[in-house]
Amino acid sequence: MASADTQSPVSKAEIEALCAFACRLADAAAEVTLKYFRSPIGVDNKEEGTGFDPVTKADQGAEEAIRALIETEYPDHGIFGEEFGIKAASGPFEWVLDPVDGTRAFISGLPTWGTLIALRYNGEPIIGVIDQPYLRERYLGWPGGATLNGEPIKTRSCASLGTATISTTDPDLFKGHERPAFNTLLNESQLVRYGLDCYAYAVMASGHMDLVIESGLKPYDMMALIPVVRGAGGSATNWEGDAPGDCGRLLALGDPARLEDTLAILKG
Amino acid sequence: MASADTQSPVSKAEIEALCAFACRLADAAAEVTLKYFRSPIGVDNKEEGTGFDPVTKADQGAEEAIRALIETEYPDHGIFGEEFGIKAASGPFEWVLDPVDGTRAFISGLPTWGTLIALRYNGEPIIGVIDQPYLRERYLGWPGGATLNGEPIKTRSCASLGTATISTTDPDLFKGHERPAFNTLLNESQLVRYGLDCYAYAVMASGHMDLVIESGLKPYDMMALIPVVRGAGGSATNWEGDAPGDCGRLLALGDPARLEDTLAILKG
Repeated sequence: MASADTQSPVSKAEIEALCAFACRLADAAAEVTLKYFRSPIGVDNKEEGTGFDPVTKADQGAEEAIRALIETEYPDHGIFGEEFGIKAASGPFEWVLDPVDGTRAFISGLPTWGTLIALRYNGEPIIGVIDQPYLRERYLGWPGGATLNGEPIKTRSCASLGTATISTTDPDLFKGHERPAFNTLLNESQLVRYGLDCYAYAVMASGHMDLVIESGLKPYDMMALIPVVRGAGGSATNWEGDAPGDCGRLLALGDPARLEDTLAILKG
Repeated sequence: MASADTQSPVSKAEIEALCAFACRLADAAAEVTLKYFRSPIGVDNKEEGTGFDPVTKADQGAEEAIRALIETEYPDHGIFGEEFGIKAASGPFEWVLDPVDGTRAFISGLPTWGTLIALRYNGEPIIGVIDQPYLRERYLGWPGGATLNGEPIKTRSCASLGTATISTTDPDLFKGHERPAFNTLLNESQLVRYGLDCYAYAVMASGHMDLVIESGLKPYDMMALIPVVRGAGGSATNWEGDAPGDCGRLLALGDPARLEDTLAILKG
């Protein structure tokens, strides 16, 4: 961890402490989200049209719980959350939060949503948590490693795109040339799975899929995914093979040896 | 249970004993399927092209375990399984089995496959189990009731199709006029979820979705779903509103009050 290839000057001990803290944040979020997931109260109220929305309650409540912990323990850290926006940092660290990624799954009673918690250091995501509390699956990534519930995970090798299982949340979200590029990728691959949001990256990181591609992602949708995918041995780039930055176009591969082939297809 | 409205002459005590037995069958299947789900051995071998296929192993092993129990306990019962075909009954009872429904989810590491176990009495499904052992969710339905892990479940009401969450496994599986009919339904509804196989029916039965529609189903894909949906208060018919029989076109509604609107849309 914190080795030269990650360009992170954060010490191994500090990474470990911050990973443990990220897990505390996920615990706090889970207490809130699990109250609302599959909540019959939420359903009843929604049908009465009173404006009670279980996913909004879960989103806001979980982000409040996370923000309170960060402000107490690391008051100099910045916060960028989906629900309550940006609190500027007075140092290099910023937490990027999506308390409920996969709203449609959440409101449909499907356990493939996740709580996303990322820590950026000078803009670069160095720690990521994809937490699925209903499944009791917590994926954690940092420079040099990734775990599922504390057990190391590794992406799988992929001999060619023709044997690949690929995923995107919704092909209709692709715009302009993105859609034909995705369609070509789809034709080259063996199997596709849709509708999974962050959970596709988690499953890929633990070696059960090969490629996840999306566009139009907000920073809080994608920052937590990157350290998990990279820590498990995969690559996470934009569609040109560069660091994804904030562009919203994420290409995640379990086997980095497939990056060149994939980029060639995306270029057309 | 076994009340007049179900037209089942099977006694309440017998239904209870058969429900308990169906759960024993699901336990036996789970022992096998969980050995292969997310199995790294399976993945490694698949990549070597040796023909080892974890889902086939899981399917066959689980069906063997189920069939052995039925043959011991109820030798006069018929069996119709996806993997090993038909054993003729010497009485009115027949078990209909799909050990791993949702093969694509299974091989992609996604916990939305299920083991389907149905008991037919003179051709009519009276008991159904949708078992998801990785999630530890067992949905059980019989004439007059349905449970998730022993707790009663109920479908939710749906004021209009405009508020409905609907699901189908893959819209590309619809043929001929089915596809435009589905598209109209899609346009009328609020939210759609794809790729869920049997799990969509389970989630609908427990009140989190409103409509599931499919075509091209084999008897072992659909028989177990019907008692769960009906037992939870929903309706399960073919696309004309009649008993689904073996036609493979299943329309499941959480709120039977939406049946007429839905049939009108399907008729075009």
